[in-house]
Amino acid sequence: MKYNFKNDYTTGCHPNILKALTSSNLTSEEGYGEDQYSKKAVEIIKERLSNPDSVVHFVSGGTQANLTVIASVLRPYESIIAVETAHISVHETGAIEATGHQIQTVKSPDGKLTPQSIQGQLNLFEEVHTTIPRLVYISNSTEIGTIYTLEELKALSQFCRVNDLILFVDGARLASALTSSASDVTLHDLAIYTDVFYIGGTKVGALIGEAIVINNKSLQKNFIYNMKQRGALLAKGRLLGIQFLELFKDDLFFELGDHANKMALKITTGISDLGLPFLTTTFTNQLFPIFPNVVIAKLMKDYAFYTWIKIDDDVSAVRLVTSWSTEEHAVDGFLEDLKDALIL
Amino acid sequence: MKYNFKNDYTTGCHPNILKALTSSNLTSEEGYGEDQYSKKAVEIIKERLSNPDSVVHFVSGGTQANLTVIASVLRPYESIIAVETAHISVHETGAIEATGHQIQTVKSPDGKLTPQSIQGQLNLFEEVHTTIPRLVYISNSTEIGTIYTLEELKALSQFCRVNDLILFVDGARLASALTSSASDVTLHDLAIYTDVFYIGGTKVGALIGEAIVINNKSLQKNFIYNMKQRGALLAKGRLLGIQFLELFKDDLFFELGDHANKMALKITTGISDLGLPFLTTTFTNQLFPIFPNVVIAKLMKDYAFYTWIKIDDDVSAVRLVTSWSTEEHAVDGFLEDLKDALIL
Amino acid sequence: MKYNFKNDYTTGCHPNILKALTSSNLTSEEGYGEDQYSKKAVEIIKERLSNPDSVVHFVSGGTQANLTVIASVLRPYESIIAVETAHISVHETGAIEATGHQIQTVKSPDGKLTPQSIQGQLNLFEEVHTTIPRLVYISNSTEIGTIYTLEELKALSQFCRVNDLILFVDGARLASALTSSASDVTLHDLAIYTDVFYIGGTKVGALIGEAIVINNKSLQKNFIYNMKQRGALLAKGRLLGIQFLELFKDDLFFELGDHANKMALKITTGISDLGLPFLTTTFTNQLFPIFPNVVIAKLMKDYAFYTWIKIDDDVSAVRLVTSWSTEEHAVDGFLEDLKDALIL
Amino acid sequence: MKYNFKNDYTTGCHPNILKALTSSNLTSEEGYGEDQYSKKAVEIIKERLSNPDSVVHFVSGGTQANLTVIASVLRPYESIIAVETAHISVHETGAIEATGHQIQTVKSPDGKLTPQSIQGQLNLFEEVHTTIPRLVYISNSTEIGTIYTLEELKALSQFCRVNDLILFVDGARLASALTSSASDVTLHDLAIYTDVFYIGGTKVGALIGEAIVINNKSLQKNFIYNMKQRGALLAKGRLLGIQFLELFKDDLFFELGDHANKMALKITTGISDLGLPFLTTTFTNQLFPIFPNVVIAKLMKDYAFYTWIKIDDDVSAVRLVTSWSTEEHAVDGFLEDLKDALIL
Repeated sequence: MKYNFKNDYTTGCHPNILKALTSSNLTSEEGYGEDQYSKKAVEIIKERLSNPDSVVHFVSGGTQANLTVIASVLRPYESIIAVETAHISVHETGAIEATGHQIQTVKSPDGKLTPQSIQGQLNLFEEVHTTIPRLVYISNSTEIGTIYTLEELKALSQFCRVNDLILFVDGARLASALTSSASDVTLHDLAIYTDVFYIGGTKVGALIGEAIVINNKSLQKNFIYNMKQRGALLAKGRLLGIQFLELFKDDLFFELGDHANKMALKITTGISDLGLPFLTTTFTNQLFPIFPNVVIAKLMKDYAFYTWIKIDDDVSAVRLVTSWSTEEHAVDGFLEDLKDALIL
Repeated sequence: MKYNFKNDYTTGCHPNILKALTSSNLTSEEGYGEDQYSKKAVEIIKERLSNPDSVVHFVSGGTQANLTVIASVLRPYESIIAVETAHISVHETGAIEATGHQIQTVKSPDGKLTPQSIQGQLNLFEEVHTTIPRLVYISNSTEIGTIYTLEELKALSQFCRVNDLILFVDGARLASALTSSASDVTLHDLAIYTDVFYIGGTKVGALIGEAIVINNKSLQKNFIYNMKQRGALLAKGRLLGIQFLELFKDDLFFELGDHANKMALKITTGISDLGLPFLTTTFTNQLFPIFPNVVIAKLMKDYAFYTWIKIDDDVSAVRLVTSWSTEEHAVDGFLEDLKDALIL
Repeated sequence: MKYNFKNDYTTGCHPNILKALTSSNLTSEEGYGEDQYSKKAVEIIKERLSNPDSVVHFVSGGTQANLTVIASVLRPYESIIAVETAHISVHETGAIEATGHQIQTVKSPDGKLTPQSIQGQLNLFEEVHTTIPRLVYISNSTEIGTIYTLEELKALSQFCRVNDLILFVDGARLASALTSSASDVTLHDLAIYTDVFYIGGTKVGALIGEAIVINNKSLQKNFIYNMKQRGALLAKGRLLGIQFLELFKDDLFFELGDHANKMALKITTGISDLGLPFLTTTFTNQLFPIFPNVVIAKLMKDYAFYTWIKIDDDVSAVRLVTSWSTEEHAVDGFLEDLKDALIL
Repeated sequence: MKYNFKNDYTTGCHPNILKALTSSNLTSEEGYGEDQYSKKAVEIIKERLSNPDSVVHFVSGGTQANLTVIASVLRPYESIIAVETAHISVHETGAIEATGHQIQTVKSPDGKLTPQSIQGQLNLFEEVHTTIPRLVYISNSTEIGTIYTLEELKALSQFCRVNDLILFVDGARLASALTSSASDVTLHDLAIYTDVFYIGGTKVGALIGEAIVINNKSLQKNFIYNMKQRGALLAKGRLLGIQFLELFKDDLFFELGDHANKMALKITTGISDLGLPFLTTTFTNQLFPIFPNVVIAKLMKDYAFYTWIKIDDDVSAVRLVTSWSTEEHAVDGFLEDLKDALIL
């Protein structure tokens, strides 16, 4: 196989992280997130947020982050509003419902929620007989590669505050979103305009790890008990702290996100130059070009990627994902091979 | 107020039930469904089913029946397929999700599922990352008054067996469905073609009570432990047994369902004669005629009923529900008043 | 069989309740507790409590009351402190754990909690790694027939407030407790000194029904959503309202509790006069006399009751329960037969 | 601080693991446990078990392993029998109850279950009204450092099979148990005599990771769906596979367990030589010596460890834990300092 474009977690971790794990390996540390690395990582992330009131906790993975946050902040009869393509709704094996909560989904061609689409769900509320919608779940970047602009984020934030809704951002691919050429959102904005969000590490060069950031003070209390109860509190919390320290002590987090986006943009440009269309326009590390099925078959001999959706009998959309470790020559090679596949 | 068409549980219970409660009142009985009345009621229902292998349990209400059955038969990662209007999805305050299970919903103009629409949901399955669809939930009659024909029921049954799906029928309004002029389904058919269903008592003249019928032997074991755990096992189980004995020892259950349908049909005919359309064609005790808003406003001075959905700025569909206790003169009066309201 | 002393729910309901069900039967009422009877019953109970700020809701049974209250007031990581014999711990098929909460139990010879025994559980708390004890569950009367004095109740109340604990009283047999000759506690005391409690109807002459009383204002919000979600909200809520109206519009509730206690006291006196000991001294409707096994065998030919615990090879404690419907001649007959059995 | 004896997860990981993470870092692998390292690690562990029918899955931590296994194998109304000191009961913040299951605990001075103590719990079963005990949870080594002999394990296994109970072994410290000088149990024995167990990695030199081994075929199906739903399925499953490959491709797992035990034995011998008693006799890496409080105070200036339990006003038991990374000179130094503290 020449290259694997299936996802952004095919390789291990950024070499700096391995180095840090190695150099810290034999120090003796407290468990459960009380180690010096985790503490430092929390401090540095809070500086980045420019929000001293935020609370930061590290967990292993995205589903764990989502289920722990949601089960922590909702009462049993409160529900979640999300788009139909939301990760929590379609790719987490019912993890949210397993904590007892209903998800109400909204169709959305661009994978994003708006005040209008949330209002549509609120309108379905019937006293006593329905759940009370309480949490708005969005992903940035979304499951189909799109991103929220600052204006959109602000509008959602204001709408949520007016309607007593909790705004939660799944940031599994936040690095790619924030460093996208089309984005004007910063970490600080997320600290100001959301109640809680998480910063994905796994998809931007960590071995594992997501940093949950709770900005709303009323949601911070006893959060760690929920983590422990859901199996999300690591004994060797240092493993998470060390990695986030590496990602944030300089600009590694942003550099790696930016690199993935640049590789994606190069592919986008190359494909567009060949006159091929896309299912959705994205400026992040997930691309959804539409290829003839015969081309897909040829490419799949040398490349790994998912066929996303059948468009008609002849063409399909595929998903190509770049990452912090995608090398430029792999991208160049892919574009060459695509060109060849189209000609033949 | 002249009459209340809001639902089929506005009045108490059929006089025969009151009589039976009175005559049995001071006998000493075992608790938790082991009383002689419950035992006899179970035997009689099983005779009606012509299926000696079915197991019958009584619970207080519909949500309790639904949540106890579903939590009992599914593994944590298994999900439910239902129509978008399904009672469990929109009017039970997240009761099913509160037991940990995801509901996948299908749009359906007539409120019914088909093998095709179920297959559409099965196609969304992705190994490991999605729940495994395992239970098909249908209501008969449906939440919008429609019913399943025997052919449709058989088709669903066969599809479910081929695809290892459990077929569960919510029979909150089963009396109305089975006695509908448009129905060719019998209790025996339900025993043969479904894995589990329940016979609603509350909406056909009982004070409370639904009879859960488990036909699939592999789902019968220890069901009563689930009932106890969910608070669905009454200490004085006699209250449920006595009522179902009255409903089934003769044909009261069917007579009361038939009466409600006849009253509904009379309203349907009267409204049709006035040239007014319906949102959906039903032959059960729920009607959804479309009235001018001014007419609705006039009628609401003397009658209670729900406005169901706004059609446009001038007209809306309303819901009219008849019951075992709806008297013919109330129906006649309503049609008169409707005629007057249209004229003015 | 001459008489059934197994429990206090062997018979139907008090005749007044049947009369009220009959006379109200055909009135048209709103569902889900919004009927006029439920509303009146709530008002009358609140007057009895002399606490206008309490909120009252009716549910069908004790397990339902317990699980709905507990799941409503606790966060996922909060736990319950109870005695080892607590109904929620040993006779509800894991209903509380099924809502996600841990119960920490304390050995107690008299079936009661004290500030000291609660403190013993609080001492086991370890930050992050254990649940946070938050709710103190007591039953009055207890599962072994004992009762709390006002002084004991006050001490628990004060301890709970100081330690941020919720005090919840399971009142399945509250009528017997409050009318016990040894009790100085009133309904008003319960409204003042507890956060939430329920008034049992099933065991004092109702067909079904428990009245949940929430005194702590911070626990009242949206409680009805929990009821609906757990299947505890009856469509024909009138059934519960009518019964509690009968029990409380005059003094029926107290008269029936008092009657059961008087019958129990007569048995106690009779047994003591025969020189037989008791496992525990009670002044409520549950008695635990110790009989020779041969006597038990003889009595069981004519009477139904539970053998509670084996004391040694020759004697065992049994449980005798009287109720609102226990007739004095049944008690007299039992004492006669006991005397005969001892002689032979 | 001279040395930290608080637990066996104070340091990072064994250097071989770091080396393997480094050398494999940039290979492209499938996610979710489908990588080549995880597959190889599974094969090697199955060889070690000499049980080709076992199924092996990797998760991040012990609480996650426990809650995922238990929620996977039990029906909602089934409960767990465990000792009062069981980790799942006292140190997992109610994680098991949060999945809906009750734990019934047994007092046990040596932290172990026996057929007799399990039978005592089975005797409490009452049809319908109690949960059905279904899973027996033991830890090896136990939470207080003791271990099960092969004879004890066999007896439990036979008892469980006769009584339709699932035997589950929490092996967070299995390396220490299996390499204990007092143990005659092998991995093969665990595969033969238990239904499911897990092999702890975190406490024997891995960064994170526990290997769940399901021997009972009826419990294997769809286990991975439970993992995903509970947030226990890592995207970069390679992190777990690589570590277990290192631990089991040679004898590293056993060597590290053995080292920890040897260091513990040296401390035990040293303390015994000084004439000091122990709370419990252990041959694993957890020790519970009893020291004068003044000695504890002195030692705590240079060493980190937990005071376990107060014996009387003058002496307390402490817990000392050694690990794969405990160096002999640290042990020697501690014994010297202890001697000094006793003299002064």
